[in-house]
Amino acid sequence: MKLKILWPGKTRNREIRGLQEFYLERINRLERCELVQTKVARGIAERFADRIKKIEALGLEKHLKDGYIICLFHGGREMNSAEFAQFLEKLASSSSRAITFVAGGFLGLEKRILKRADFLLSLSQMTFSHESIRIMLLEQIYRSLTIMKGTQYAK
Amino acid sequence: MKLKILWPGKTRNREIRGLQEFYLERINRLERCELVQTKVARGIAERFADRIKKIEALGLEKHLKDGYIICLFHGGREMNSAEFAQFLEKLASSSSRAITFVAGGFLGLEKRILKRADFLLSLSQMTFSHESIRIMLLEQIYRSLTIMKGTQYAK
Repeated sequence: MKLKILWPGKTRNREIRGLQEFYLERINRLERCELVQTKVARGIAERFADRIKKIEALGLEKHLKDGYIICLFHGGREMNSAEFAQFLEKLASSSSRAITFVAGGFLGLEKRILKRADFLLSLSQMTFSHESIRIMLLEQIYRSLTIMKGTQYAK
Repeated sequence: MKLKILWPGKTRNREIRGLQEFYLERINRLERCELVQTKVARGIAERFADRIKKIEALGLEKHLKDGYIICLFHGGREMNSAEFAQFLEKLASSSSRAITFVAGGFLGLEKRILKRADFLLSLSQMTFSHESIRIMLLEQIYRSLTIMKGTQYAK
């Protein structure tokens, strides 16, 4: 299985960055997983949200190849962790394409990116900050791999 | 509104502890919120799960007074953040009782604690580590208070 994760910009919160590194390192012990922190729009006022989202979309698109694309989206489908593990396992066994997860910036993902998705995934009905979502996603990927491999999840 | 949060034992992960302090401090700027890290079972092998959960339940019970009790539970009800804010607002306006959130340790909550709950809440269909759940809960409480107070949520 080849995993790729895309999101715009480096994680700014120090603690979240620490957790992110922790999970990435753990995931990479089990499967190859590449994180690409794509281009962010800098110096643009938040009222120009459309412009910011467009710049970020262009940055993400550069790294969206022909893999299976899973976008994190608030209105997406929810699964429990066992279902998510089965879902990833099926994907990996039916194709050699990379599985690419895409998470948005603080304004979310532009429609053109959501349209490219093969699957829209929601991690919770609740809204979390875009940086919290990053570690929630990484924890779920790590948990899925341990479920698939029958490893005990580190508590 | 008087908020209280209970969970067994101090948070061990340094980054999660940092995020916990961050959110608690923010929450306390808006409403009084007390965190009590209750007694944990030490030195008992994990195969004695029932014993561990019982000891933790006794520790939690000491701090469960007559407030409204919300237990985090995997099979509980999900809400989105706006619904959660409305739910807390209604609770606060209909009674002066404290609102007490209870989160379990790595083995979850014992039945006797779940039975005491006025409400069982699920933050996600997915399973997260008990320490991740702590910051997810704190972020949602903080988010709810900012929604109630019309403050802009800090990104």
